[in-house]
Amino acid sequence: MSGSIPSDMRVLELENYHEDLAAAIQSLHVTQKPTPRPGTGQVLVQMVAAPCNPSDLVFMQGLYGVKKSLPAVPGWEGAGTVVASGGGMMANWLKGKRVACGGQSDFDGTWAEYYVADSKGCVPLRKNISFEQGASLIINPLTAWAMFETAKTGGHRAIVQTAAASQLGRMLLRLALDAQIPLINIVRRKDQEDILRSLGAESVLSSEAENFEDQLREECHRLHATIAFDAVSGEMTGKIFNAMPERSTILVYGVLSYAPCSGIDGGEMIFARKRVQGFWLTDWVRKAGFWKIFQASGQIQKRIADGSFATEVRQKLKLEDAPNGLKDYQKQMTAGKILILPK
Amino acid sequence: MSGSIPSDMRVLELENYHEDLAAAIQSLHVTQKPTPRPGTGQVLVQMVAAPCNPSDLVFMQGLYGVKKSLPAVPGWEGAGTVVASGGGMMANWLKGKRVACGGQSDFDGTWAEYYVADSKGCVPLRKNISFEQGASLIINPLTAWAMFETAKTGGHRAIVQTAAASQLGRMLLRLALDAQIPLINIVRRKDQEDILRSLGAESVLSSEAENFEDQLREECHRLHATIAFDAVSGEMTGKIFNAMPERSTILVYGVLSYAPCSGIDGGEMIFARKRVQGFWLTDWVRKAGFWKIFQASGQIQKRIADGSFATEVRQKLKLEDAPNGLKDYQKQMTAGKILILPK
Repeated sequence: MSGSIPSDMRVLELENYHEDLAAAIQSLHVTQKPTPRPGTGQVLVQMVAAPCNPSDLVFMQGLYGVKKSLPAVPGWEGAGTVVASGGGMMANWLKGKRVACGGQSDFDGTWAEYYVADSKGCVPLRKNISFEQGASLIINPLTAWAMFETAKTGGHRAIVQTAAASQLGRMLLRLALDAQIPLINIVRRKDQEDILRSLGAESVLSSEAENFEDQLREECHRLHATIAFDAVSGEMTGKIFNAMPERSTILVYGVLSYAPCSGIDGGEMIFARKRVQGFWLTDWVRKAGFWKIFQASGQIQKRIADGSFATEVRQKLKLEDAPNGLKDYQKQMTAGKILILPK
Repeated sequence: MSGSIPSDMRVLELENYHEDLAAAIQSLHVTQKPTPRPGTGQVLVQMVAAPCNPSDLVFMQGLYGVKKSLPAVPGWEGAGTVVASGGGMMANWLKGKRVACGGQSDFDGTWAEYYVADSKGCVPLRKNISFEQGASLIINPLTAWAMFETAKTGGHRAIVQTAAASQLGRMLLRLALDAQIPLINIVRRKDQEDILRSLGAESVLSSEAENFEDQLREECHRLHATIAFDAVSGEMTGKIFNAMPERSTILVYGVLSYAPCSGIDGGEMIFARKRVQGFWLTDWVRKAGFWKIFQASGQIQKRIADGSFATEVRQKLKLEDAPNGLKDYQKQMTAGKILILPK
C-alpha cells in the first residue's frame, strides 16, 4: 500500500440496530478506525461520495437481508478512486481508476474515507460521469434495469409499480417509456402524480383515491399488466394482487409500509394462477453473470451522462453532518437523496 | 344410442350460487332433464355413485374457478357404467366398461342419473374396485398424488400441510409415510391430532396451541420443510410462510377459512426468497400429460384396493335426500364423505 494512505480513517459508524429509525440514526457517530487493507482480488477505494438509499435505512433498522456485526459502517455503494490493490489481475488493473463500487456483506461499508471493494464489484467511471453521479450508479439504476429485464424476458406486456415517484421508480419509468412498454404507476400524493406526468407517464394512479382499486383493476386489465414491482408491502400488495389479471406475478422488493402483506385472495392464487414472491437485486446479479452486468453498466452510464437516469440530490453532507441530514431524509424520501462526502 | 336409455333423467340441480352455503344448498332440488347425448370423443355414463367434495361446496358458493350457467348440475366426479359412445376410438372402446369419470367445465355434472364424460376423463375401474370406491378415485387421490409428485420433483426434503385430517390430507400422509419423507401435519382439533397419529403421523401440530407458531418454526427448520400445501388461507398462510426456512414455497389449494391470505412478511419474500402461489389439480393434469396420469391412476387403484387410500363414507344418499345430507356435511367435513347414489 502507498505511503500516502493514512493508517487511520474517519468513518460513520452504527452502534445499534433499532426498528425505530430515529433511534437507529441517533446511534450513528463519526469515529476513527484503522484503514482496512485489501486482500487478493480486492481494492482500496478512497471514497468521494456515497448515497443513503432506502435499503440503508432498512439496514439500520436491522430489517435488511444482510446484517453486519456491530459497530459497523453502513453504506452499500459509492464512488471514489482506487488507491491500492490487494493483488490479482483485475484489482491491479483498477489501480488509479475512478470507480463506482459497492457490495453487501458483513464488512464495513462506503460511509467512510476508505472502503475495501471486491474488484468484481467495481465499475470504472467514464470521463463524463462525476463522482457524485457515479455514487448512485449501482443500486437504483441496476435495480430498475434488472426489473425491466425481468419483465421483458418474462414476456409481460405491461408493468405495475408502487412508490413510482422514487428515484428508482423514475428510472423504471424512463426505461418503459423508451421501450414503449406501458407502465402503471402507483403513488400516494398529488405532487408525486404531477412529477410523474411531467416525466411522460401516462398511467398514474393515486392509492389515496376513493375508487383506487377499481381504477387499478381497469388499468391492469386494459393494458394486460401481468407483472408488478411492489416496494410497499402491507395492504397494497393485496390490492395489486386482486386487481391484476390471470397469471400475474407480484414481485415484492420493499417494505415501505412496514406491514406484512395482506388481503391476498386464495382463490385468485389457485384459479387465476397468480403468485407473490420477492425481488432482490443481489440475487438478480448473482444469476445474471458478468456480461449482462457489463452491458447494463455501460447503458446505465450512458443514461446517467445524458441525464435520463438523473438521481436528484437534496443535500451533500460531510460525515459529521450526515446523521442530522438522515433524520430529515427519512421523513420525505422522494425529495431527493442525501449524498455523503467523506473526503 | 341404445333404446334402453330413457329420454329424460333425474338430476340434482342448483338454482343459485350463494356465498352463504346453507342458502346455496337450499336452492338444490331434484328435477327432470333430457338425457344428454355424447358428442365425438365423449361417452354417456350411467352414474352409480358421486361424492360431494369440498370443491363442490365452493362451487355452489360461486367461489370456484369454474362457474356453470345456472341452473346446472353440480358434481365434479363419480363412477358408473359407460352406456353409449359418441364415436371415436377411445370412446367406443370404453363402451360397456365400469369407469371413474370427471371433468370441470360449464356442462352438467355427476349428480345425475346420466353424465356425459370426455373419454380422456374416464378411468376404467379394476375388478376389485367397487363403484362406491371408484366414485372418489380422481379428485382427492390424484390431488394428493400431484402434491406429492410436486414436492418430490422439486427436491423438497419435507412437506407441510394444513387441514391434515381431511380425506386428502390422509392420503398425502400415506404417500409421505411410504416414501419416508417427513410431513408436518397441521390440524385444528385434538381428535384430528389423534386420528393422524393413529395413522402413523409423527409430526402433528394443533393450530390452536398457544405456542403453535414457535412449534411450527422449529419443526419446519428441524426437518427442512420447504414446501407447504395450504387448504386454509387467511392468517394460516402467513403463519406457515413466516415459520418456514429460506427458499420455501407455499402452495395454496383451498380457502377453508374464507379469508384472504395475510401476515406474509415482505422481508421474508425478498431476503429469504420465499413465495406464495396457488395449486390447482386441473392445471397439474394439463401439464402432466397422459402417461403420468395413467401411471398415477394405476397406483391409485392399487392403493384404493389395498385400503391405504380409503375414503371414509359417512352417508349414502339418494338424489332426493342429498340436500339435507349436504347440510350436515358442511358442518363437519372430516367425519367422512357424502356419497350420492343417483341410480
